Amino acid sequence: MPRNALYAQSGGVTAVINVSAQGVIETARQHPQHFGKLYAGRNGIIGALTEDLIDTSLESDAAIAALRHTPAGAFGSCRHKLKGLDKNRAEYERLIEVFKAHDIGTFFYNGGGDSADTCLKVSQLGETLGYPVQAIHVPKTMDNDLPLTDCCPGFGSVAKYTAVSIREAGFDVESMAKTSTKVFILEVMGRHAGWTAAAGGLASENEGEAPQVILFPEIVFDEDKFLAAVDASVKQHGSCSIVASEGIRLASGKFVSEAGGADAFGHTQLGGLAPLLARLVGDRLKYKQHYAVADYLMRAARHIASATDVEQSYAVGKAAVELAVAGKSGVMATIERQSDSPYVWTTGEAPLDQVANVEKKMPRDFISADGFHITDACRRYLAPLIAGEDYPPYRNGLPDYVRLRNAAVPKKLPTFTVTK
Amino acid sequence: MPRNALYAQSGGVTAVINVSAQGVIETARQHPQHFGKLYAGRNGIIGALTEDLIDTSLESDAAIAALRHTPAGAFGSCRHKLKGLDKNRAEYERLIEVFKAHDIGTFFYNGGGDSADTCLKVSQLGETLGYPVQAIHVPKTMDNDLPLTDCCPGFGSVAKYTAVSIREAGFDVESMAKTSTKVFILEVMGRHAGWTAAAGGLASENEGEAPQVILFPEIVFDEDKFLAAVDASVKQHGSCSIVASEGIRLASGKFVSEAGGADAFGHTQLGGLAPLLARLVGDRLKYKQHYAVADYLMRAARHIASATDVEQSYAVGKAAVELAVAGKSGVMATIERQSDSPYVWTTGEAPLDQVANVEKKMPRDFISADGFHITDACRRYLAPLIAGEDYPPYRNGLPDYVRLRNAAVPKKLPTFTVTK
Repeated sequence: MPRNALYAQSGGVTAVINVSAQGVIETARQHPQHFGKLYAGRNGIIGALTEDLIDTSLESDAAIAALRHTPAGAFGSCRHKLKGLDKNRAEYERLIEVFKAHDIGTFFYNGGGDSADTCLKVSQLGETLGYPVQAIHVPKTMDNDLPLTDCCPGFGSVAKYTAVSIREAGFDVESMAKTSTKVFILEVMGRHAGWTAAAGGLASENEGEAPQVILFPEIVFDEDKFLAAVDASVKQHGSCSIVASEGIRLASGKFVSEAGGADAFGHTQLGGLAPLLARLVGDRLKYKQHYAVADYLMRAARHIASATDVEQSYAVGKAAVELAVAGKSGVMATIERQSDSPYVWTTGEAPLDQVANVEKKMPRDFISADGFHITDACRRYLAPLIAGEDYPPYRNGLPDYVRLRNAAVPKKLPTFTVTK
Repeated sequence: MPRNALYAQSGGVTAVINVSAQGVIETARQHPQHFGKLYAGRNGIIGALTEDLIDTSLESDAAIAALRHTPAGAFGSCRHKLKGLDKNRAEYERLIEVFKAHDIGTFFYNGGGDSADTCLKVSQLGETLGYPVQAIHVPKTMDNDLPLTDCCPGFGSVAKYTAVSIREAGFDVESMAKTSTKVFILEVMGRHAGWTAAAGGLASENEGEAPQVILFPEIVFDEDKFLAAVDASVKQHGSCSIVASEGIRLASGKFVSEAGGADAFGHTQLGGLAPLLARLVGDRLKYKQHYAVADYLMRAARHIASATDVEQSYAVGKAAVELAVAGKSGVMATIERQSDSPYVWTTGEAPLDQVANVEKKMPRDFISADGFHITDACRRYLAPLIAGEDYPPYRNGLPDYVRLRNAAVPKKLPTFTVTK
């Protein structure tokens, strides 16, 4: 009898994390000699710890196929990082208890950097606690900050959403600028790296096209330089459309959103970056401005997902299962770029001890000398990642996203309480 | 020799106003016996007043066809309402000067309620100032507030954007709610009527689906009732996704965004509604919250336009030209609904004196008794308007929107300065 496997989604969800789930499930179904049942953790690793498992074998082939076009986490995800073995041994012992009770021999973890670290620790349970588990990481993060993979599944779709949105808003602002709004700010997610903001730059294919200004977390925010760049764009092109990363910082290292927030109205969480920048433009340049905040809309936007991203998301799920079948453990499935144009890629693998807790930064030569746009090198890297459309089916004018049955596997163990 | 015609775009642009332009231009080209050249005002009526005209005959058939998939105003739009004849006679006299100089006998005005009023006044120039012009109004407004037409071209696409976005964000929030964000707020445009917010309600096809709460400008905002509704949704469904119209008001009549803004940080323009509601939820219910602000993204989102809206936008442009050919003036082309399901509609006409300055409100029976959702009557009305997808072509992963040549017609008159 082959042993069972467990799949869990981790951290912030994306438009295509379910595509990786589909890749894992469909590929595992093709290897009945290697896998018994494939379970999923309800709400990620929390489900594994609380023995709240989902039996994916009860989902129809059609439902699993529909994961391809369904955003967010179909089994639920969570933000819970397992601490080191020395700090919370109880959680690891519980995990082994659950794995034993349900005869789980393989663990697929679908997440970003923190989850890679957890996955690595699970792969070491044989050495550390005497219960060997094959643990394979399936990369996922809209932040695009995992090392040793060309890109992170989830990022291409966020990139496409950003580029499409700022192009559309740019056309809008341009056509009204004579008598109305001259400056538009789109605030995008991305606390630590400017990948998402950079993707907005793809919309500007010719001189003067939106976005005319991009604000990166990698570049210290300088109010005067920013306003000068905005003013120059309005004077030269009639308007200025801006993509601003939520993570931009002052020279002090403080987030602009917090610094401004605290100064202006004594409440750091409220307001956010975009309204602050808008007010700055209004007060100092006297231009009419508007702003949008993309927030979750960008990472949930399956309706405008990148076809490349969808394919890669599936491919890493499939590759992860094949790595398991090949007997591997402690590795992450990766995307390897062979060439930029045409974009040729294959899947590969990377050892998790080189992935966990390493953040891929945006190279400085991806940002223009003035700090307000992307370079050609950046374009060459980013362009293929947003290529292609992969539309979901629609019903009643709305995307027809699937909700799985998510039937629970009967519990066998006493209750366990997860501490934060 | 047939006389020339002038087309102008007015007010806030939409994802499909250019489709109406395409309808006007292509149909006018089919009637060379009736129209000489078709000019367009650069930046709307401002272009007409400043004699800044565009010769649309210099645009290729392919470029005009590409207007079908290009958002915003291809000729530029503006916010400039002509005052009454008694208040600014000079502008009307100037308009006649320009019309005479360029032999313009027909005026197509593509806009909302204010523009309908201007269009009416232009249609009366024969009586009032002795220069007869055929003036036909082409309806356009994302606000859906024009009377005597089933709906307003531009609205269906905004409605679809809102419904799609809140469905996607709802899936996201639902899948993370166990350990992360439980309440999500999407702020949508619509100062005076709740049409756009109501459209978000279409995403909730089954009990408990997002959005669980909608905030309408028609319903006085009651903090306690709002928080109770949010709390109930979180307790019952695990999360609460909210569509909030920017135009919601307190019992005093004050906008919530302004009132809150002034109280919290003494600056009414800053911050906006969504951050305010988010803070309220955080402070009083202690739930983690996030918010997005759609702003121009929603009205520019040609990539997710409603196919019904695209068809109707073309149809009113075409109908407007046919009304002109039939010798009509002082009318607006309209959409007439024959049945809800299947949605059967035709174009019609309405006299501008019954359109100008009349605002179509959302019927009270379109909002549920508790004030937080839409009724079945509302669904029957809205559902067909978001039906169908009409994707633009893509190049390099981005929508391939057209920029017209917009060649200027040589000026013949002295300069004229438009006063605000």
